[in-house]
Amino acid sequence: MRVGVVGAGQLARMTHQAAISLGVEVRYLASGEDDPAAEVARFSAVGDPRDPADLRAFAAGCDVVTFEHELVDLEVLAGLERLGVRLRPSSATLRMVADKAVMRGALAAAGLPVPPFRVVGRPAELDPAVDELGPVVAVKWARGGYDGRGVFRAEGPEEARRVAAPALDRGLAVVVEPWLALARELAVLAVRRPGGEVVCYDPVVSVQQEGMCREVLAPAPVAAATMERARRLGLAASAAVEAVGVLAVEIFELADGELAVNELAARPHNSGHHTIEATATSQFENHLRAVLDLPLGAPDARVPAAAMVNVIGADDLTDPRHRLTEGLAADPGAAIHLYGKTPRAGRKLGHVTVCDHNVDSARARARRVAAALGGA
Amino acid sequence: MRVGVVGAGQLARMTHQAAISLGVEVRYLASGEDDPAAEVARFSAVGDPRDPADLRAFAAGCDVVTFEHELVDLEVLAGLERLGVRLRPSSATLRMVADKAVMRGALAAAGLPVPPFRVVGRPAELDPAVDELGPVVAVKWARGGYDGRGVFRAEGPEEARRVAAPALDRGLAVVVEPWLALARELAVLAVRRPGGEVVCYDPVVSVQQEGMCREVLAPAPVAAATMERARRLGLAASAAVEAVGVLAVEIFELADGELAVNELAARPHNSGHHTIEATATSQFENHLRAVLDLPLGAPDARVPAAAMVNVIGADDLTDPRHRLTEGLAADPGAAIHLYGKTPRAGRKLGHVTVCDHNVDSARARARRVAAALGGA
Repeated sequence: MRVGVVGAGQLARMTHQAAISLGVEVRYLASGEDDPAAEVARFSAVGDPRDPADLRAFAAGCDVVTFEHELVDLEVLAGLERLGVRLRPSSATLRMVADKAVMRGALAAAGLPVPPFRVVGRPAELDPAVDELGPVVAVKWARGGYDGRGVFRAEGPEEARRVAAPALDRGLAVVVEPWLALARELAVLAVRRPGGEVVCYDPVVSVQQEGMCREVLAPAPVAAATMERARRLGLAASAAVEAVGVLAVEIFELADGELAVNELAARPHNSGHHTIEATATSQFENHLRAVLDLPLGAPDARVPAAAMVNVIGADDLTDPRHRLTEGLAADPGAAIHLYGKTPRAGRKLGHVTVCDHNVDSARARARRVAAALGGA
Repeated sequence: MRVGVVGAGQLARMTHQAAISLGVEVRYLASGEDDPAAEVARFSAVGDPRDPADLRAFAAGCDVVTFEHELVDLEVLAGLERLGVRLRPSSATLRMVADKAVMRGALAAAGLPVPPFRVVGRPAELDPAVDELGPVVAVKWARGGYDGRGVFRAEGPEEARRVAAPALDRGLAVVVEPWLALARELAVLAVRRPGGEVVCYDPVVSVQQEGMCREVLAPAPVAAATMERARRLGLAASAAVEAVGVLAVEIFELADGELAVNELAARPHNSGHHTIEATATSQFENHLRAVLDLPLGAPDARVPAAAMVNVIGADDLTDPRHRLTEGLAADPGAAIHLYGKTPRAGRKLGHVTVCDHNVDSARARARRVAAALGGA
């Protein structure tokens, strides 16, 4: 069985490490030969994942195709499935996940708690939505956003119109919701096989900054009842979208203690990087097992606590690869992961995971290493 | 900095996984394109590590060269060093380690306890050695053995002559020692930087069968004082041979409780595979750090106990890659590592590591998974 991964970024790179252990052959569809996965793996193809011909040629050499990003054309994928290509997750799942408007609708239809929202497809619908949900609202482009791009805070209708325009002008919908008072953001990863077997990792706290995941604390330092509710939301979301592989479920814990599902990603996710060191089976290995329809691994924690801190590019010159001595010297017990990417301000260049007795000391240590590597 | 690894077997394959995390570029000198490391890494060269031209060409593309096996020509390596190639470990270290006769002499000269032994270079010297140390002796070819090959039990001079002949006839010495009553075999891994900084993993029990490592129990279930003595032997051996990178020190625990150093290997070693899951920094990552003269990682255990069981080929047909479903289903908490090798009776095709509360339950679980994968 040969797995094709559409994308060759850091998620694919870490998937490759897991594939090596399992003895599973994986190929990557890269945008260039220096992509993070392409530079470390024997087999990759260079092509455009939105181009039907490139995708068809790539899929032809694989028994099953999976994804490390959502930058794909759903019509092209559906066409491939009609030709008999096995996509995991399926184009139907990706359709529910890749478009925030569709996702919110699907989650609400499945009875999962979501924030109050309106889907706005035309400029004229925007003011009524802000009237109803605002005055301060979140405006989210239905598609094309990641790491905080395409998500905006708007203080009233005028600002909402401005930030929605780039989407609405292209015929893309936006989701409008009240700007919520959050206690914190949680994330839970569920991994599901085609037949429905599912495992769920301990919920974590995901510390966001400008919409980008900066830190993860595992397990989430919250009440046991909250953990259990988050876990149930993860399992329910995974079943609702019929996920195959990792489904990352981002959850708002509101100021009043209620939980609401914010977002889904049907792939390995930044909120699960700590699973490489901190659990019996990493999210990357379990994703591969699921898409190959192999028995899933235990998601159980192997250590009391762990923290993951991303190494974010500070500028275009500071390269963590050139600060490896400083990073390694900062903490002999830390696990450093560098992605081999050209530095750029705001870019995820790597991450640091520290396992420790509690999340606070793990976080302090991981932050120190990320800083020593030159992370912003 | 680009690292060249001479060899592309399973040790190189697992080194590649560590190199991916560190963002370090590694190339492998493989015997063929399907070697375990070559089939998963972007860059490898095919060549003969004993051929001066092949080795010179390979080294020319690397900043530092290290080794995953001892099947090299020491004169060729010394010649490369004279040309300015940076070998880690050095040819001087490899000279002490690769030849059992030289190694025993070096260890004894450094004041380390070794079994009583005689180095026999000519057939006429064999009978007196067996007379002195026997009647039952171990005969070990000074070079060319691994995984039990080249090591023999001989009940008296006649059998000793027979098993020594293939070596002596080629002008190779043999080491003769009494066949010792062992309580168990221990192993300790020390990792040393060029400047002498060194870390040492917890000593383990290495369960051998016909001279091949079958199982590893970590930490070794022995008295604290024995652990401490084994650790000191590891550090002393590492300093004695001026190792750079991993030095694996195989230690006999004799029936009377005394320890004696049996063998050294100046590379990542089967007795350290559990460090991938069970310690803060794996032996593979620490080997890379050492040969790059980077700060070493903590060797501390992350779990109470771990057991590693090798998956040994039962015959030429049973391929663990075709039994992955059974292997994964046998224990959801086990870590399976397959090496991508063509099955053959007696060949190491993979290993299984289980972390648990004690070594006995870890071993029982790992054995079950190795059996489910078809291991002998």
